[in-house]
Amino acid sequence: MKRSLLKLYYKNTTAEVIGEEHGITKEQFENLAKITSPVTDLLDAERQAGKTPYRQLPYKTENLKNIQNLAADLMNQGCENFVVLGIGGSALGNIALQTALNPYMYNLDSDQRKGPRLFVFDNVDPVQLSSFLDWCTPQLDKTIFNVISKSGRTAETASQLLIVRKLLTDKLGAEGFKNQVVATTDPEKGTLRAIANDAGLRCLQVPDGVGGRFSVLSDVGLLSAAICGIDIEELLAGARAMDSKVSEKDFYKNPAMINAAINFHYYNQGKKNSVMMPYNYALKDLSDWYRQLWAESLGKTKDLNGNDVFVGPTPIKALGTTDQHSQVQLYREGPNDKLFTFLQVENFENDLEIGPEPQCAPELGFLAGAKMSKLLNSEKKATEYALLHDKRPCLTVLFDEVNAHTIGQFIYLYEVTTSYAGALFNINTYDQPAVELGKEATFALMGKEGFEELAKKIGPVTKIDENYIV
Amino acid sequence: MKRSLLKLYYKNTTAEVIGEEHGITKEQFENLAKITSPVTDLLDAERQAGKTPYRQLPYKTENLKNIQNLAADLMNQGCENFVVLGIGGSALGNIALQTALNPYMYNLDSDQRKGPRLFVFDNVDPVQLSSFLDWCTPQLDKTIFNVISKSGRTAETASQLLIVRKLLTDKLGAEGFKNQVVATTDPEKGTLRAIANDAGLRCLQVPDGVGGRFSVLSDVGLLSAAICGIDIEELLAGARAMDSKVSEKDFYKNPAMINAAINFHYYNQGKKNSVMMPYNYALKDLSDWYRQLWAESLGKTKDLNGNDVFVGPTPIKALGTTDQHSQVQLYREGPNDKLFTFLQVENFENDLEIGPEPQCAPELGFLAGAKMSKLLNSEKKATEYALLHDKRPCLTVLFDEVNAHTIGQFIYLYEVTTSYAGALFNINTYDQPAVELGKEATFALMGKEGFEELAKKIGPVTKIDENYIV
Repeated sequence: MKRSLLKLYYKNTTAEVIGEEHGITKEQFENLAKITSPVTDLLDAERQAGKTPYRQLPYKTENLKNIQNLAADLMNQGCENFVVLGIGGSALGNIALQTALNPYMYNLDSDQRKGPRLFVFDNVDPVQLSSFLDWCTPQLDKTIFNVISKSGRTAETASQLLIVRKLLTDKLGAEGFKNQVVATTDPEKGTLRAIANDAGLRCLQVPDGVGGRFSVLSDVGLLSAAICGIDIEELLAGARAMDSKVSEKDFYKNPAMINAAINFHYYNQGKKNSVMMPYNYALKDLSDWYRQLWAESLGKTKDLNGNDVFVGPTPIKALGTTDQHSQVQLYREGPNDKLFTFLQVENFENDLEIGPEPQCAPELGFLAGAKMSKLLNSEKKATEYALLHDKRPCLTVLFDEVNAHTIGQFIYLYEVTTSYAGALFNINTYDQPAVELGKEATFALMGKEGFEELAKKIGPVTKIDENYIV
Repeated sequence: MKRSLLKLYYKNTTAEVIGEEHGITKEQFENLAKITSPVTDLLDAERQAGKTPYRQLPYKTENLKNIQNLAADLMNQGCENFVVLGIGGSALGNIALQTALNPYMYNLDSDQRKGPRLFVFDNVDPVQLSSFLDWCTPQLDKTIFNVISKSGRTAETASQLLIVRKLLTDKLGAEGFKNQVVATTDPEKGTLRAIANDAGLRCLQVPDGVGGRFSVLSDVGLLSAAICGIDIEELLAGARAMDSKVSEKDFYKNPAMINAAINFHYYNQGKKNSVMMPYNYALKDLSDWYRQLWAESLGKTKDLNGNDVFVGPTPIKALGTTDQHSQVQLYREGPNDKLFTFLQVENFENDLEIGPEPQCAPELGFLAGAKMSKLLNSEKKATEYALLHDKRPCLTVLFDEVNAHTIGQFIYLYEVTTSYAGALFNINTYDQPAVELGKEATFALMGKEGFEELAKKIGPVTKIDENYIV
């Protein structure tokens, strides 16, 4: 495995390339360096004070043995299907690691996988879940459900768990529930902990003080990765390697600092949309992971002084080349309100050679014999060129290759970038107060005791008024 | 199959609900009605003049037999894998129909599918495609490739075709290419037409004058749907049913008119992001189809008078309940710059009952015994309630159920909404001039003859400058 570090390339955000109206001038960079540099000390102090325990996750290597042993036990038990029941930070990292580091045909082709099939259910759609359970029920004894929730009271995950618990108990008895379910939850308290203790489930831990969106490099994300054959030691090694880079004091040597500063600058200049566009299918679900990280961390009404600020860049997931034929028309000609971040890979694990052109189609001769990877990266450069032509700022994260080490780096880079950005916006990066009302409203609509007053308020607002239907 | 019509519910965009700063007042609605109503005549005139042939696609029922016969032939030939090679409008509709109307486990569970496995490749990622071809190569004779391109010169689709052509010829001889490939292309001219004629491929047509993003209800989208067991007659019937509704002259009775007007209003009020958030897994890829439709149609620099306007709402794909735990923090607390469109379904094809709570977790009792569909729709209402609390405007498209008829309706509703919106923005809804430069830049970077000058320009811009790497 190559161990070169990710690089952030930012020339195409500069005024030199796209002009002073939309680009960042040398003076502006100097100013950004001035306001961002002190943040490093702030983040260090928070880290030392134990306020950002996510920063230490890559160093918890003693825990990996535990995860690997559990994965081995589950395999020995005959696990052929591994099913994550979780949502948000208990799902998006798992999905991103799988898409990035395992083959596209992993679930369909037993020759291409080293572990069980992987399914992640992060929704409560009965049609979707029924389709899965219909298929899965005859092979429940070969299926492991990993329910992931800090509290166990998240309605989505709790309802999935109750359905699976009944199914397993009906089909395999009380032992079935015990044998086929693994809980990743709070080490001591909470609903899921109580259920796990009561039933004697095998357990892993959701780390204390780490929000879901920062938890992928803990038990939350690592068990599904390990059992599917992903090198979790390399993931953490990559994150540690990035830690040394994002701890640099020099603005121009610290990719998290400069990434956050550029994002902050453009937000303040009215470019409030942040498009992440990998030119690599394997990286596509990292954009979804990033969407949560960025949106929940930076979307805040109040700043730390209690002022109403209503900040928050809107993260947007795109994919090259696919979205060239869907979004690039807007990206070039629409409002100049977006910052683009490309993810580009230099070396591919597999490549394909484009076949010869038919005699009747000499116009395709320019493709014949070329590597598909060359085409993919040419398309990236072509799109970037076209965007720059219209003065749209572009960042690129350069991957030497996609492997567990670089993915670990990427995750840590963006987590720390988020911490820098939150500090620049002067907000609380780590809470998510606005999610609560929706959760409570769900409780109220489902008739949970204690939410009767809220239910009375919701009724009139959500009742369909026939006068406004067309 | 139920045949009730989709409904658009718009009360939660009104000033009555979210106040005058962010809601639409009665006077503003009256004004929107005044400016939008004349558009109906304009669109009718365009339709009569043959300028918007997509409007007639639902009436081309004589063509369905042709598609169904071809699908039957392919099944008789032993087709077990159906592979679409296309991009943009030649892929997103196919994917959306499949996700909407076939089971989640379709490809993995032979009991749950009536047709072949379906794969859609709308990218040129060598690692992704290699994984598929490794699996597929031993069963090439059971695999049909449907290459879809009007011209055949789209670099992505052309390169896929050349790879598949070589593979089939190497493994199965020239007959292999002829037997396993179906071309959907221009009836007369172009590169793919020439290749198809030369090799004797079976062909379907990309309709004349219909842009890719408006073509799903033609041969482009219907062959993959038909062979996978989707009722394509009902799709068109649904679109026709919606046609009568979106041809209404009365603003308050025409959902396309009122939908476009509300979107137009909010764009002009600075809410330039348009979030489509289905509360239904099956509808999730319709959001991707909508993203292209909306972005390519409405993202334009010039208006029809040649003025620089740089308009274009940014379409954003979200999914309930998944994104409640990812995006709703931002949606509620961040800038009030988004219009939300929920897709809500009343009746589900399958449902699940949530199991009883364990004795040790009485706090989950409120979920026990409830239908999962009730939870899903309660979450929708809860999220809407929370957004309204923060004065964020919300539209809802109400589906009685998800079936081919309602999906056909939805597609046509949004196509015509797009035409209305384009007319309100006073732009050309149907072209995509900005895609060209990226295509040409790709040609240049791949060394195509005639693009040498462009290649010289691109070189310096896309060359990595080591001074800007961190």
